[in-house]
Amino acid sequence: MARDLVPRLLEFAGVFETDGAAFSLDPRLDNFESRSAAMADVLAELRVEGRINGWRDELFRVAADFGAPPFLKMERAGAPLFGVTSYGVHVNGFVREGKDLSMWVGRRSPSKPNYPNMLDNVCAGAVAFGMGARETLIKEAQEEASIPAAVASQAKPVGAIRYCCEGDGGLRPDVLFVYDLELSADFKPKPGDGEIAEYMLWPIDKVAARVRDSFDFKFNCNLVVIDFLIRHGLIATDEPDYLALVEGLHRPREIFAP
Amino acid sequence: MARDLVPRLLEFAGVFETDGAAFSLDPRLDNFESRSAAMADVLAELRVEGRINGWRDELFRVAADFGAPPFLKMERAGAPLFGVTSYGVHVNGFVREGKDLSMWVGRRSPSKPNYPNMLDNVCAGAVAFGMGARETLIKEAQEEASIPAAVASQAKPVGAIRYCCEGDGGLRPDVLFVYDLELSADFKPKPGDGEIAEYMLWPIDKVAARVRDSFDFKFNCNLVVIDFLIRHGLIATDEPDYLALVEGLHRPREIFAP
Repeated sequence: MARDLVPRLLEFAGVFETDGAAFSLDPRLDNFESRSAAMADVLAELRVEGRINGWRDELFRVAADFGAPPFLKMERAGAPLFGVTSYGVHVNGFVREGKDLSMWVGRRSPSKPNYPNMLDNVCAGAVAFGMGARETLIKEAQEEASIPAAVASQAKPVGAIRYCCEGDGGLRPDVLFVYDLELSADFKPKPGDGEIAEYMLWPIDKVAARVRDSFDFKFNCNLVVIDFLIRHGLIATDEPDYLALVEGLHRPREIFAP
Repeated sequence: MARDLVPRLLEFAGVFETDGAAFSLDPRLDNFESRSAAMADVLAELRVEGRINGWRDELFRVAADFGAPPFLKMERAGAPLFGVTSYGVHVNGFVREGKDLSMWVGRRSPSKPNYPNMLDNVCAGAVAFGMGARETLIKEAQEEASIPAAVASQAKPVGAIRYCCEGDGGLRPDVLFVYDLELSADFKPKPGDGEIAEYMLWPIDKVAARVRDSFDFKFNCNLVVIDFLIRHGLIATDEPDYLALVEGLHRPREIFAP
């Protein structure tokens, strides 16, 4: 949690408390509903005070781990203020023709509040409260890339990436569930909800070079591409940073929150 | 390093020294050749004393990291006494027929000194001094599984696994470079150098069940299979231990040696 937010949060009597070292919810908030309601009130006030950017009207599930019983639910835009782990799905949309691989790359809309014009995976999205990873994938594929459920459901879960960075006004300890979706050469994703302005099918070497030589990809999408390159044998073991790349993509939670 | 070995090692004057906390090589051993020669003398004596099991006549490269300049070389069987990281290659030999995957599973020879009769990957081996990961793969594929170089060279590097355990008289902080080798349905690996007694082509579900329900696979080969199952979409994100599995296979070095 950002230190400069602590004094403000402690003004919410009956919600937060501290013993000077640890900071916690008032133990009288002893169930999911009461904790969620208290957090909703707090975030509504912080929003009015201009302390939360980019309100989403999307709820996140807050739990000790993905799939663990939820402790509370809260507005997505408030999650970074508390360092709450978010879970997302990212899809590599690729085309195989013989030995050649190509990858669909999206360019984010110039009007997006965050990361406008940057390159992106074919579709991606945060797992919202009440949704699973696969459901999120099917929904985002349809909404963002106009990929019908019958096609999106062919996507294979191929791992997960964890990172932790500062962003969106706080701390983002994110987990991305990664999917590979092999698309036929005659299928074209199309921008749906306006998140993505255009899709381009690039030879995989061009995608790899762009990740290596530029910051054109949104900061977390490059990780998803690097993971794809490793899993498909397109980065060799004689790459000096091979182990650092493999392990950097999968740093366990205790590295970030000992 | 095993604590009970420390007093014996300190008897090697001019080789090891300690300040009571750290344990190190005598700084007068200031180059690769002198360090390697001193270590060879030490290990030869420890072998006579029965402190080293399973002498291999194989040399390991000792360096700060894979590919870093070597600090010294030493007999493989002595590496666990000093907690030296070993690097190996493990190959998933699999067959794809339509949507169905099968995997070649080896059964280790009953006369092997270590892990006799246990199940194994199609081929595997430690990276010896002066060899690269891919060279090791080509060599082991030929020697262990009678897979010709023209076939083995189709193997794709798909990642790496790190673990650390006690074994072979010391500590084994191992890195396995993982390769996927897709074999045609009419190709059959054959035992070569006697490490493997027989090969069996099993449906992937049978392999997965054996890994889940038994300890029939050699302790590190099961990790290689689990990694294969994850990368090929055969373990879904709703598996409760999904993140623990993905991250457990890629624990970074600093987890083991802070």
